[in-house]
Parts: sequence; C-alpha cells; structure tokens
Amino acid sequence: MVVIMHDLIIVGGGPAGLTAGIYAVRYGMDVIVLEKSVVQGQISLTNIIENYPGFASISGGELMERFNDHANTAGVKLQSADVEKIEDAGDKKIIVAHNGKFEAKAVIIATGAEPRRLGVTGEGKYLAKGVSYCATCDGPFFAGQKVIVVGGGDSAVTEALILSSIASKVYIVHRRDKLRSCSLLQKRVYEKENIEFIWDTVIEEILGEELVEKVLLKNVKTEEKTEMDIDGVFISVGIVPRTELIDVDKNEAGFIKTNERMETSISGIYAAGDCRETVLWQVVTAVGEGAVAAVSAHEYVMVME
Amino acid sequence: MVVIMHDLIIVGGGPAGLTAGIYAVRYGMDVIVLEKSVVQGQISLTNIIENYPGFASISGGELMERFNDHANTAGVKLQSADVEKIEDAGDKKIIVAHNGKFEAKAVIIATGAEPRRLGVTGEGKYLAKGVSYCATCDGPFFAGQKVIVVGGGDSAVTEALILSSIASKVYIVHRRDKLRSCSLLQKRVYEKENIEFIWDTVIEEILGEELVEKVLLKNVKTEEKTEMDIDGVFISVGIVPRTELIDVDKNEAGFIKTNERMETSISGIYAAGDCRETVLWQVVTAVGEGAVAAVSAHEYVMVME
Repeated sequence: MVVIMHDLIIVGGGPAGLTAGIYAVRYGMDVIVLEKSVVQGQISLTNIIENYPGFASISGGELMERFNDHANTAGVKLQSADVEKIEDAGDKKIIVAHNGKFEAKAVIIATGAEPRRLGVTGEGKYLAKGVSYCATCDGPFFAGQKVIVVGGGDSAVTEALILSSIASKVYIVHRRDKLRSCSLLQKRVYEKENIEFIWDTVIEEILGEELVEKVLLKNVKTEEKTEMDIDGVFISVGIVPRTELIDVDKNEAGFIKTNERMETSISGIYAAGDCRETVLWQVVTAVGEGAVAAVSAHEYVMVME
Repeated sequence: MVVIMHDLIIVGGGPAGLTAGIYAVRYGMDVIVLEKSVVQGQISLTNIIENYPGFASISGGELMERFNDHANTAGVKLQSADVEKIEDAGDKKIIVAHNGKFEAKAVIIATGAEPRRLGVTGEGKYLAKGVSYCATCDGPFFAGQKVIVVGGGDSAVTEALILSSIASKVYIVHRRDKLRSCSLLQKRVYEKENIEFIWDTVIEEILGEELVEKVLLKNVKTEEKTEMDIDGVFISVGIVPRTELIDVDKNEAGFIKTNERMETSISGIYAAGDCRETVLWQVVTAVGEGAVAAVSAHEYVMVME
C-alpha cells in the first residue's frame, strides 16, 4: 500500500485543529485534518457560548458548524480516522489510525480533552443510566426530576443553570464552601430558586438498581455521611487531555508541554488547544494556538524542503 | 476632582482589548476600555479577513463591528481617551489621558502596533488598493498577478514565500545587496523560481489610477531610476508597537515582554495583542491573549481585596 506523504497532519477537528487547518491551507500546505467523531470538540456539547468574540450568544453546535463551514470554504480536508499512535521517524511522522497509516512531515496534536471522572463506585456502572458529563446532551432526560451537579467551577455552574430549567430541583455538591466560577455565573445561579447548594461535600458512592436512585454523600468537615434520593448525577470536575497517543513531554495531568511557538519536545510535532498545558482552556485561546502551531509547522516544513 | 478607582482599565479597544473586556465583565469586574480612535485596531484597516474562525470572509471593519456589538451586549463600557502615560503606584495604577486621569487596581495594555511605513508618495493613497502590509491577510487577492515585497528580513522573506505560491511573480526589493534573514529562509527563497531579487534598490513612489499600477524604483548605488509595472506592493519593513506610554520591560523593537499569563514586569499590569512580544500577530491570537490577560487581572484583583 502506498502511503501519501503530506506536509502536515492535524489530529483533531475541534476549534484548534480547524483553525490550524485554515492557516495551513492559506500557506499552501498539503494538509489533512483527522477527526474520529462526528461530534467535533467539547464545544459541540456546550449549550450557549457568550465569550467567543463576534458571537454575543451562540450554541456550541452552531459555532462548530460555522467553524466547519469556514474550514470547508478555505479548502481544509477533513478525514475520518481514530488515531491510536503518532510515531516520530525524524523527517517523517507516522500516524497510526484504526483504518490505516498516514505520513506527514509535521504533525499538530489538537486532540482536546474529555471530562474528568470522579472515580467513585457506581460512576461507571450508571453511565448513561443517570450519570452524565453533559447537561446539554442528557439534561432533557431529567425533566421534572431531581439532579445533582458535582463541581464548583464555571462549567459546573453552567451545567446547573441549564438543568434548572429542565429538572424540578438541582443540587450543587461542592467540596469547598464557595464557588470558583466567575461572578456573573454565580449571580445567575444564586437567583435560581430551584438550585440548592450542598457545601463541603463529596459523593462517596452512586447507588441504584437499573438506574441511579441515590447517592452517598460525605461532609468533608464533619465526616458525616448521608444518603440522598436522586435521579441524576452530572459530573463537572475538570478535564483530562487526550494525549496517550503521543510520547512527548507532558505535565503530571497529561497536558502536553510546549513553548510559545507550540513546539513540543519533538521537532516537527506541535500541540494546540485543550490538550496543551496552559492557563486557560477556551475556544478563544484554542483558535490562537491552532494558528501559531500552523505557522510554526509551516516554517519547519519550508526549511526541510 | 474625584477620580473613580476601577478594578481594571484596558487601554485599547481592538480585538485584544475588547475580548479582555468581555471576559472581565463576565468575572463581575468594574472595567472600562479606553480607546483613542474611532478606528479600533489595525484590523479595521484590513480589506478582507479570511482567517478569523467563524467568518469565512469578512471585512476588517465589519468584524470589528461584530466585536463592538458583542462587547456592548456583554456590558463592556468603551470610553474615548487618548492615553499618554501609565504610572505604577503599587496597588493603584494611574492612567493619564489627554482628557483626564483614570485610576485602576489593574491595567491591561492592548494598544496594538502599526506597520512601519516606507514613507513614500502613494503609500497612503493606495492602501488596500494594491498596497498591503500583510501577505497572510491580502495575498489571495493577487492570485496570478505580479507583486513586490519590500524588505530583507525574516518577515519580508516569509511574506515573499507566502506570495510565491499565490502570485505569478514576486520581486523582493531590498536596499542592500543581501538579505538580513536567516540562512535557512534564504535557502528556501532562492530556490523559488518565481521569486526575483532587485538589490540595492528602494521604492521612490507608488503610482496608478484607482489601483496600484507601477512603482518608481531607484538604485541606491547607481542612482538610476526605473519605472516598473506591478499589481501589488507588500511592505514588510517591521511593525511599530504603541508602547511609549508605559515603562515596563520591552524588547529592542519596543514590544512588551510578558510570560504566558500576560504578566509584564510590573505587578498588576498586563499586555495582550500586537503590542506584546510574541511569534504571531493576528486577530485570532489577540483575542486569546486578551482573555488570558483578563483572567490574570481578575485573579490579581481578587487577591488584593
């Protein structure tokens, strides 16, 4: 089988990957974007985005559609592939996917991240049976029911706000005694009459028969344990980067380390977006990183030739 | 006169400044954006932007209007002020403008930059009518045409390389008899068959009717003058950041040095966008930097309180 050698392969078709694609095409590079899923990027699952400049209020799905249309207009080729491994052979990078091998002079890793698991008993067992990581996706199944949101950051509060207009009652279970989220979101959440806070508390176990029926809560200050009846548990405690497929320098949490040129520890391999170690993971930062990664990859390939 | 102490003042209302404003408002900060001009940001002068994700093709003016509408909807207050000086008084920053003084706990400098002008007749007249300062932005309009790149540094050579795969012919006009750019980029540019050098030469004048049609060249050694037909003139003799108003660490060209949190050498003062030392100056990078600067400023002000 003949494997075509591309200038650049971008792994991941979320905001970072597609922006890198748009820039690479503009530089005249032979580039393809590999995406494993029909749902591109975590953003697609987000209900409403109000902080990507240019769109005062847009759904995540719609914004991703805009990005897709833009990439398509620019001539970015998107290809379906679930990438398992990226190997460095110096001037050649080998991308091993479930459906074949790809080769490129340079690679941009824009594989994103996925929700962090709580790691409690019952979490896996009741996945899609009452346990969820996405209110936008699964909220409608809990109409008129009682749900818990676990977490205290922007995304946990956003999840609670979405659920408050679907469920009859939303409890926010947070291990601290105050929220980490921004004050605009806090203000909104405190105004909701059907949202209640359970502070200083963690979930110890998720229980039920076929579906989730209750949780075992523990107050981290008093050590007191309580059982509570509940229909759904929405977990929103951070993200885990998808970076197992590549052996470059990473931080303890698995995020890929780069310099400001988005260069990883391997020459010719770049990272951008949620999979990268940085201080803020947002659409607005992902796109900038994608652009920088493409520019760096372009310079690298130009010099090779 | 009573001077109100704001949480945050953002100097500059281009893409970086407005995005910082949108994020700061969402964090519940008392923030104002100071902008001296009705024309916000270099972007407003750009003909067509095809590389800000979400808008496959939009004029710079229109995109800036979208940013303004978004900032307005989010509750960002824009105020007219030509800032002359920013003084650090520890917990308080004093912003001296032509129309008064402002005070804030934190400041984000988003004053941008401007392309260094050649200073020749016709340069202003034919701006966006054949004269450009950005091959990435405007290159695609010159498909199959003949263009000049003025300059001899890394960025001029990069501009020429970008244009060589779009235009039919690229002339590099340089006042010296060799390039200043790195040898690897030189190697690449010498290999391009449609790039030709015009050494020891400067542009004396840019001529045309509605659009650029020719240039008057002067050989600086022989003093000989020649007219030459051309469709586009790309000027790449550096950019000049607007950073005289603040005394923080800068590089030799005047760009403000920051870390990845956008922190300058003065605590509580941040920089974002074109005025910052970085590797790529684009709308897509400016917005991300603005967001990060706002997050950093928010954390700084929170800790102060």
